[in-house]
Amino acid sequence: MKLTALAGGVGGAKLADGLAQLLPPEDLTIIVNTGDDFEHFGLYICPDLDTVCYTLAGLANPVTGWGRAEETWQAMEALRRLGAPDWFNLGDRDLATHLERTRRLREGQPLSRITRDFCRAWGVRHTVLPMSDDPVRTMVDTHEYGELPFQEYFVKYRCEPRVRGFRFAGLESARPAPGVLEALREADAVVLCPSNPWVSIDPILNLTSTPHPPFPSPAGKGEGGRRGDGVRASPLPGREGPGVRASPLPGREGPGVRWVAVSPIIGGKTVKGPAAKMFAELGIPPSALAVAERYRGLLTGFVLDTADSALAEAIQRANVQTLITDTLMNSPSDRRRLAQDVLNFIRSLLTADR
Amino acid sequence: MKLTALAGGVGGAKLADGLAQLLPPEDLTIIVNTGDDFEHFGLYICPDLDTVCYTLAGLANPVTGWGRAEETWQAMEALRRLGAPDWFNLGDRDLATHLERTRRLREGQPLSRITRDFCRAWGVRHTVLPMSDDPVRTMVDTHEYGELPFQEYFVKYRCEPRVRGFRFAGLESARPAPGVLEALREADAVVLCPSNPWVSIDPILNLTSTPHPPFPSPAGKGEGGRRGDGVRASPLPGREGPGVRASPLPGREGPGVRWVAVSPIIGGKTVKGPAAKMFAELGIPPSALAVAERYRGLLTGFVLDTADSALAEAIQRANVQTLITDTLMNSPSDRRRLAQDVLNFIRSLLTADR
Repeated sequence: MKLTALAGGVGGAKLADGLAQLLPPEDLTIIVNTGDDFEHFGLYICPDLDTVCYTLAGLANPVTGWGRAEETWQAMEALRRLGAPDWFNLGDRDLATHLERTRRLREGQPLSRITRDFCRAWGVRHTVLPMSDDPVRTMVDTHEYGELPFQEYFVKYRCEPRVRGFRFAGLESARPAPGVLEALREADAVVLCPSNPWVSIDPILNLTSTPHPPFPSPAGKGEGGRRGDGVRASPLPGREGPGVRASPLPGREGPGVRWVAVSPIIGGKTVKGPAAKMFAELGIPPSALAVAERYRGLLTGFVLDTADSALAEAIQRANVQTLITDTLMNSPSDRRRLAQDVLNFIRSLLTADR
Repeated sequence: MKLTALAGGVGGAKLADGLAQLLPPEDLTIIVNTGDDFEHFGLYICPDLDTVCYTLAGLANPVTGWGRAEETWQAMEALRRLGAPDWFNLGDRDLATHLERTRRLREGQPLSRITRDFCRAWGVRHTVLPMSDDPVRTMVDTHEYGELPFQEYFVKYRCEPRVRGFRFAGLESARPAPGVLEALREADAVVLCPSNPWVSIDPILNLTSTPHPPFPSPAGKGEGGRRGDGVRASPLPGREGPGVRASPLPGREGPGVRWVAVSPIIGGKTVKGPAAKMFAELGIPPSALAVAERYRGLLTGFVLDTADSALAEAIQRANVQTLITDTLMNSPSDRRRLAQDVLNFIRSLLTADR
């Protein structure tokens, strides 16, 4: 069984790790949100991508879920002494990732190739793909400050401003990275990991399906930094074609690929992050049901926590099969167990069709 | 007595530190070479400037002379794991300097203002000025590889290629940073520290004396990185006027400002760095005499090591006063002692004129 998982940050990374413990590398591709990427100190930082890769590599900080294990903070301390902005934590080891990624992007290399090489260096055997090699910037529209770049909303303002909408700058011209559409087409099932529907999964689902043109070959040494188009190559024109969500995947109308989401909301709350708060501020009572509604028309199956079992019936009424299980992932073995439940659930969906 | 010192890296930083131990902040300005600046991993790195500032701040690594004391290397180790270029050492604390400088340069702030603020944060009380806010790049022309950016010649190739010349890219349009010409005009004496004449002192001496126009105000947030002109603002037009070396300083023809150099070559060798090797490869037998010849027409006084006392007479024949003393600086007290000798020598030169 071939699986493709769509993931954002910590929650998504945990389930992806569980699936990676159970599936061989050739059977699992993880597509990661890049809408939360940003530039800081001239470095190109991909928080979701790093969280997923560090988690799969066993390099993630087991306490925070983000950042690296056994991290040190010498650079951060020295930055504070200089009065530098310190709202975003830059660990010494983590910095190396941002530095080398920035160097290679400035040489003209695509993010997907850089990510592939980093994964190899870190011993990640499964395929991790950034959703796009083109820059997409999630902007959070807030009552208090107007539009904020996602990391400012998320880290600098600790998700405190009240949300009234989102904008994914650049998404209209961003193309799925090489391998993304193939992974979706070739999968028996696509798993929407327990990530934030608004800011982690939506950007991936709304990508255009225009195939990626060949990336320009690396610019001359040092020249990359002198181009007028920022660290990443400018998005190229061409946005025709339906998005990932609407792309004609085989089997959407019959047996074949199944889309299964795992709720990031348990008992009306999120384990981590602002998803529940966002639902509420947008006028939707946060619940697993609200998540299922958000993915309406896409899902074959939905996994919700035992705490929310009462919501299963309402979800099933929309012709979505449900699995009720313990969805909390506190330990590595939890990840594996939930992943096993999800796999069994998907197998049952596929079998039921035959 | 007001002094202005011109300095490059380790040797220059040591004497500057000695002078700073003896002179109050208002009486000493240190002008530092920026021709060895370069960009690496998207960061803007100023090796000479950092060496001087770290040394004056008491933050320098006492063993190497460059880099920071009690440095850690987590980022560097993680970079190696990623297969990143590792020829230039980036300590974790040192990285903070490059990161915050890069961030502020991208906001449109001039290097001189950033350096001033860094010095304040580090507790450096004397004025340290980069020679220019405009980018200058020392290129070393070598037999083996043609032109190499200075840091590649110096660090990556460990000064091994044979030198046949130098080029200071950008120097023709670079203006002295705010305060540089004033410091030269107002000084009773200018000290050429024991730095490399070819690649540390020459770039400073050959700067144009066109006053620096007002620096553009900081660009909009994030916008700085999108400009097509690299990390630092492009050099602005305007190169009329004589250079620092030729600028009409008061007293060059009579009592007043005196130019005094301290030889970086002792017994035909350099304590550190490739100055002697460069002299030899350019067909000039390396010696304190060769250094004095290099500065011919500029000097009132020349300080050479006791090991080279035999050369004093030849130097004096060019109408340059000499001081023979122990010029090796192995310890902080050596720095202070040599600085005291230099100060006494300068006082004697000034007194002799009255």
